[in-house]
Amino acid sequence: MSGNDTGAIDLNADLGEGFGRWHLTDDAALLAVVTSANVACGYHAGDAPTMRRVCALAAEHGVAVGAHVAYRDLAGFGRRAMDVPPGELAAETAYQIGALEVFARAAGTRVRYVKPHGALYNRTVRDEEQAAAVAEGVALTGLGLPLLGLPGSRLHEAARRAGLPAVAEAFADRAYTAGGTLVPRREEGAVVSDPGQVVRRSVGIARDGRVTARDGSTVRVRARSLCVHGDTAGARDLAVRVRDGLRAAGVRLEPFA
Amino acid sequence: MSGNDTGAIDLNADLGEGFGRWHLTDDAALLAVVTSANVACGYHAGDAPTMRRVCALAAEHGVAVGAHVAYRDLAGFGRRAMDVPPGELAAETAYQIGALEVFARAAGTRVRYVKPHGALYNRTVRDEEQAAAVAEGVALTGLGLPLLGLPGSRLHEAARRAGLPAVAEAFADRAYTAGGTLVPRREEGAVVSDPGQVVRRSVGIARDGRVTARDGSTVRVRARSLCVHGDTAGARDLAVRVRDGLRAAGVRLEPFA
Amino acid sequence: MSGNDTGAIDLNADLGEGFGRWHLTDDAALLAVVTSANVACGYHAGDAPTMRRVCALAAEHGVAVGAHVAYRDLAGFGRRAMDVPPGELAAETAYQIGALEVFARAAGTRVRYVKPHGALYNRTVRDEEQAAAVAEGVALTGLGLPLLGLPGSRLHEAARRAGLPAVAEAFADRAYTAGGTLVPRREEGAVVSDPGQVVRRSVGIARDGRVTARDGSTVRVRARSLCVHGDTAGARDLAVRVRDGLRAAGVRLEPFA
Amino acid sequence: MSGNDTGAIDLNADLGEGFGRWHLTDDAALLAVVTSANVACGYHAGDAPTMRRVCALAAEHGVAVGAHVAYRDLAGFGRRAMDVPPGELAAETAYQIGALEVFARAAGTRVRYVKPHGALYNRTVRDEEQAAAVAEGVALTGLGLPLLGLPGSRLHEAARRAGLPAVAEAFADRAYTAGGTLVPRREEGAVVSDPGQVVRRSVGIARDGRVTARDGSTVRVRARSLCVHGDTAGARDLAVRVRDGLRAAGVRLEPFA
Repeated sequence: MSGNDTGAIDLNADLGEGFGRWHLTDDAALLAVVTSANVACGYHAGDAPTMRRVCALAAEHGVAVGAHVAYRDLAGFGRRAMDVPPGELAAETAYQIGALEVFARAAGTRVRYVKPHGALYNRTVRDEEQAAAVAEGVALTGLGLPLLGLPGSRLHEAARRAGLPAVAEAFADRAYTAGGTLVPRREEGAVVSDPGQVVRRSVGIARDGRVTARDGSTVRVRARSLCVHGDTAGARDLAVRVRDGLRAAGVRLEPFA
Repeated sequence: MSGNDTGAIDLNADLGEGFGRWHLTDDAALLAVVTSANVACGYHAGDAPTMRRVCALAAEHGVAVGAHVAYRDLAGFGRRAMDVPPGELAAETAYQIGALEVFARAAGTRVRYVKPHGALYNRTVRDEEQAAAVAEGVALTGLGLPLLGLPGSRLHEAARRAGLPAVAEAFADRAYTAGGTLVPRREEGAVVSDPGQVVRRSVGIARDGRVTARDGSTVRVRARSLCVHGDTAGARDLAVRVRDGLRAAGVRLEPFA
Repeated sequence: MSGNDTGAIDLNADLGEGFGRWHLTDDAALLAVVTSANVACGYHAGDAPTMRRVCALAAEHGVAVGAHVAYRDLAGFGRRAMDVPPGELAAETAYQIGALEVFARAAGTRVRYVKPHGALYNRTVRDEEQAAAVAEGVALTGLGLPLLGLPGSRLHEAARRAGLPAVAEAFADRAYTAGGTLVPRREEGAVVSDPGQVVRRSVGIARDGRVTARDGSTVRVRARSLCVHGDTAGARDLAVRVRDGLRAAGVRLEPFA
Repeated sequence: MSGNDTGAIDLNADLGEGFGRWHLTDDAALLAVVTSANVACGYHAGDAPTMRRVCALAAEHGVAVGAHVAYRDLAGFGRRAMDVPPGELAAETAYQIGALEVFARAAGTRVRYVKPHGALYNRTVRDEEQAAAVAEGVALTGLGLPLLGLPGSRLHEAARRAGLPAVAEAFADRAYTAGGTLVPRREEGAVVSDPGQVVRRSVGIARDGRVTARDGSTVRVRARSLCVHGDTAGARDLAVRVRDGLRAAGVRLEPFA
């Protein structure tokens, strides 16, 4: 058995998280390792020249380009939940995807999927209204793009209701509860920092569809994509270890989209 | 003879110039009159919900949607010239067009042309580098969009060099020099405010390709589109008078794109 | 008895709610009527030139200048609640007050009080953490400014804990419950739109400290200030009627600060 | 003789150049070395929490706090010259100073001077109108703050006309012409990158008021402050070497303000 029906796994990372003079993610290094790039579209990060550059690099490396849509909040990096009315949120989602699509096409590729960023990601796990608004925004574009997110989330329900594919992702560096949900970041032990353990958990999820929960039990985790982090020191090295560990375990890496 | 080879004229107006809670242009009223809408794309004005609404209304009325690209300057409404490096300006131009294209498509139409706004419009009349950057940004989108602007401008030269159509516009409410160029706004008599005169000048330009210059001489003005203003009290009424005057003079109104 | 111990009432209005090319409030007209101006400080509205102009006009009219602090959200006009971490919110509150203080001083006066705007106002009625953050931000400035808000709110508790005066305001155009709290805006009948009734309720609150609740009962409402709206058509006319009605009823109008 | 009449020199650096999640300058390290901190005020960089933190650290170290005022241009980091009308520029200058003053006072100190940043710095060397607008903005605050800049600049002239002190700075890592002006950055050899040479030039300017020009001649350079860069790798190390070199040469380091 595996984490999904394809026998393959995708590695996605948040990229292009610069703005003007500021840079956060080592885009060039990560794009040589991952298979999908969640590209910031200007709302939490990501100016136009950066979007253009990241799309060009992604296309060169055969990495799938995804729109990392976010709340309009540069000062808070999209990490502060906002009560955005659904009509505004839908339009703002479509706006970001459209802006990125231009650079993807210019690089000879297309936007392949959408993933909410930061607080919008967390909020649409449970908030039905905002989840529906994001899905409506994606549907507005007419591109039929899949929504990458947590299985069981409101976002995935909303995607399906909008006729859009819902693609499951998992986090090898986050602790899971016995119920198969993520341990909230504010709780002790929420983040797995040991690289060896992250690699082992990656393999467990990708090959067997299983991960060890915080209480020691084994839980099933369905995932077509694994999220690796792009904004930490050593991000590239960890991504390389995860990729190599997966390959060594016989897991094929390829974009889901 | 006429202002162009088609025997028809286009009326374009700057629309969607709201932002969040603020509104400036009476979009619904103007869209019932003009044939082309220069839609603000979020850089000098124009939030995503407004862009969506204006595109839907434009499509309903058969009005052509144009991207009104601008400097990134909400506080200055895009009216303050900025020394934006060409690479940034090209990418920012493409970003704005891409964002608008999403809403045009969602409304069943497409972005049909690009017109620089405010200070960017004025700057690209003479600044070769910025003109080339805007044309590069348009070319980046791969949509082959025409650039609407002043005949003889650097923008039009840059458009042609980039393989893009250059469409000439004229201003019936602006004074012309004997050389056929616009009298700068800061000079006395630069703006024609009498509605009757604006209508007569519109007909002169559209039907005969001629306008009376400031010194009383008659100058040739080539134009496929006339710009009417959308952000003044009475904007709609003046647009209606211009339209009706043109029709009464036997000039056909239709989008150029 | 009266709505407070002073025998006088203050009229406050949200002013300076323009941004760049956009205007919302008829600042000059309202400043001739009200006694306190809640001046937008650049986060939900209010660019620097507008702040300067409003402070100058307020000083001319003897109107007290208050800092109308808000979430950093121009696109949402500060009406979308945001989960801003307390440390950021405190600093952002202080920032806005400091910026306004410059223009108040330049006009020969000072910032006299602070009032949260929009979603921040609503949130700090019940959210203890954000209320404390706003109070901390005010305390940071060292100006000892009173916080204008709803009696019984977390904001007022936080003000007192921070050693700052808490000044009670009431809304003559909002329905009250029998318990003396505001009927939420989304409920039917939340807003009183008949001008005559607004005037009568203003007098009731200001002179007698009483208002008729939604269920017909009479409830006590303690208030040193009445909020009138500055961003609606007819805002000035209603403010004049309220002012004149209060004067006719023998209520003295003066700033609380 | 020396670079000024005091026998002492000031070291200033641009600090607090982060925004939200992004950081550029190693504020804590530099604040242990320099004597004046040009603190970003939110227009080109510098969010409120960062401003608060930098002011607190500066106060701790006895470093003078200066307002590093800039064009409103986060995306361009204030490096793109903008045609801001003088009235707007004056108000925006005052706004930034006022916001910073709050955090300086909260830290037990005060804003001691003003220095334009980036494109505004360069523009006000020659642009009389913008120079006057910046000086007007500083005068508006009523704080009587000195303007730090190039001797002979329009900014310094404007400062004097506005009754404000003008303080001269020099750049030990920039080439000078035989006429005593800076070699423009776009020209070859404009920047001196060898640390040893930077130290020697610092001593030459601070102790003797002299520097070797590009053509080998010796030119007089009057300076009360030397600018060291805070946003490069090794910024702290170079600042330490300059400081130690100056001390070894018997030059006293102290804030000019």
